[in-house]
Amino acid sequence: MDKTKLIADLKLVREKAPLVHSITNYVVMNSTANALLAIGASPVMAHAIEEVEDMVAVALSLVINMGTLSEKWVESMLLAGNAAREKGIPVVFDPVGAGATPYRNRVAASIISVCKPSIIRGNASEIMSLAKGTASTKGVDSTISSNSALDAGTRLARETGAIVVISGKEDFITDGKIVRSVRNGSALMSKVTGMGCTASAIVGAFAAVNSDLVEAATHAMTVMGVAGELAAQKAEGPGTMQLYFLDALYNLTPEVLAQRAQNG
Amino acid sequence: MDKTKLIADLKLVREKAPLVHSITNYVVMNSTANALLAIGASPVMAHAIEEVEDMVAVALSLVINMGTLSEKWVESMLLAGNAAREKGIPVVFDPVGAGATPYRNRVAASIISVCKPSIIRGNASEIMSLAKGTASTKGVDSTISSNSALDAGTRLARETGAIVVISGKEDFITDGKIVRSVRNGSALMSKVTGMGCTASAIVGAFAAVNSDLVEAATHAMTVMGVAGELAAQKAEGPGTMQLYFLDALYNLTPEVLAQRAQNG
Amino acid sequence: MDKTKLIADLKLVREKAPLVHSITNYVVMNSTANALLAIGASPVMAHAIEEVEDMVAVALSLVINMGTLSEKWVESMLLAGNAAREKGIPVVFDPVGAGATPYRNRVAASIISVCKPSIIRGNASEIMSLAKGTASTKGVDSTISSNSALDAGTRLARETGAIVVISGKEDFITDGKIVRSVRNGSALMSKVTGMGCTASAIVGAFAAVNSDLVEAATHAMTVMGVAGELAAQKAEGPGTMQLYFLDALYNLTPEVLAQRAQNG
Repeated sequence: MDKTKLIADLKLVREKAPLVHSITNYVVMNSTANALLAIGASPVMAHAIEEVEDMVAVALSLVINMGTLSEKWVESMLLAGNAAREKGIPVVFDPVGAGATPYRNRVAASIISVCKPSIIRGNASEIMSLAKGTASTKGVDSTISSNSALDAGTRLARETGAIVVISGKEDFITDGKIVRSVRNGSALMSKVTGMGCTASAIVGAFAAVNSDLVEAATHAMTVMGVAGELAAQKAEGPGTMQLYFLDALYNLTPEVLAQRAQNG
Repeated sequence: MDKTKLIADLKLVREKAPLVHSITNYVVMNSTANALLAIGASPVMAHAIEEVEDMVAVALSLVINMGTLSEKWVESMLLAGNAAREKGIPVVFDPVGAGATPYRNRVAASIISVCKPSIIRGNASEIMSLAKGTASTKGVDSTISSNSALDAGTRLARETGAIVVISGKEDFITDGKIVRSVRNGSALMSKVTGMGCTASAIVGAFAAVNSDLVEAATHAMTVMGVAGELAAQKAEGPGTMQLYFLDALYNLTPEVLAQRAQNG
Repeated sequence: MDKTKLIADLKLVREKAPLVHSITNYVVMNSTANALLAIGASPVMAHAIEEVEDMVAVALSLVINMGTLSEKWVESMLLAGNAAREKGIPVVFDPVGAGATPYRNRVAASIISVCKPSIIRGNASEIMSLAKGTASTKGVDSTISSNSALDAGTRLARETGAIVVISGKEDFITDGKIVRSVRNGSALMSKVTGMGCTASAIVGAFAAVNSDLVEAATHAMTVMGVAGELAAQKAEGPGTMQLYFLDALYNLTPEVLAQRAQNG
């Protein structure tokens, strides 16, 4: 991939400090806000029905994450997502736990149908669960190969019109035709809660500055992976990993990013 | 105590990676999820009335923590606890702040009566407050001796049928007849918010893999204490303590655990 | 300023360990509770309508933070604030995001009118937004000079009767007549989410032990700034900053505090 563009996007995030409006789950609010600040974006967390549309009006992207969903929050997500769609800013949807309960599946379907997300980012089983819902057949295996998830992701992208990002050892980004991949990252990232949610937020920051959303998502996932690698070099476990990851996002230079980026 | 069993439980948690469903408070969600991941369990946080029963259906234990309770959350706790009881998986109840307000006391009484928790874990004053509620008399002193709390804990265990865990400088675990104790830990743990909540979550992980719940709780509290000691050796204050504690849970070897365990 | 009094207040917080009742936002609950513990205060987070008044009854100060507000929470804030006012304990109000949406402005106005906060702490744009609301005229500029904010803060203090604290590179504390300033702190603090919310909580702790609220707020902001400087010396980014800050609060000695304090 073109590393000049990767670097340009990192610089743009830091220069523009885009306001990323997140309606996300209780578990990761703090770490997500800190990650957005660390990369240079400007986080805002607001979920009141009375104000989400007004907050969308001043934001450059919206991230909807259904991790600890409940009725009122879903109402706000739909309102905000609809407002973002009408305003024309990117909507990133993180279908946390899709497939785990029927309620979660219903909510995910509503969000996709009402908010028409620009980007859907999930892990292999979440993406397969969503694709299954919209297409049909094919059971969700407990051990899911990247390939199966990629097929499902491609199908999901075609059906929804969203860019689909599948996180994993290797990340895949697809609009249903093009497929990009990112091979950066560290196994220790999966031992820190909410790293996937953080990825969705960082995707939101890059989507706010680059209208080529396949590119934006690929760049965001590369930045996540490289920061994860740098943090893992110093970390002695998932506790220190969490903090060094934020330090790494903050200190990431264009040179190191370009050097380490393994995407294509 | 039998250190072979202690080690066996640690290994089982890591092998089985039990899904621990937590309905817990906002303050500790992140640190609790991270602690469960670090020890090798699989955390899920979900509280919507529409899905808690479905989540219990796939979980191996349920942890109910009433730290930042409110009406809707209590409804969900009762639903989930009832489902867990019917399914026959262990329910750990953490009565955060019991005794502080009448509302908290009422909710604690409902949870005990409806969910019939397998294990109740609290600090001395919480346990005394619950025992007072179910038995009668005896005021809650501002400085509470372990002995008084142990009496109350024994009474509470007999009245409720739950294993009672009293956290403190020395931890006590009792089913109303047997009493076990754990003398591991560090004073710095009390300067990190939610360490008690984390203990309840770790108890949930061990209860998911060992049906002898007195043993499971004793093992969990030993692991907490040993990880706390290891973290305190490196920490320079409560901030770094929090992270080194997660690292210590993650890196804890059976050998070090056996060496340091002071329970009986 | 009189450094003897500064030191005396730090010691008082540690001796009395005042119970600070916080009704705050999801993003910062964990870091706020940890900061209060680290400085030696005793945090309690409770927001249920059924219990906030009972919790106020045992607290020595109340902190209301409207970061992630919603209808039910606002009801609780008003109830708790009213109870605190009647009981005569200090109420600290943190108008997070004031000016960002009409809903936020309405809620801030209600809280000020019902709870009559003893202290209002915000950043320059939040304070200007509140002053604009109560007075009139003067638009909120995107780049706000301390001077403009200080004028607005003075006006806000006069109109509301509250002590106003404006956080920034230089902090200002005013009751509408006297103006104090604090020139401690580090730029890295602004890269950690919720540092302003933490400041409000620490102000709550100091207000609980010193009835001269201009002095209490000045001392609290000095402690924040000095701990931030000490943490920044060791931190390699916003991740480690967050933890070293808690360590610094915990380890802060009267000598170092007096040495570094730059307030007047």
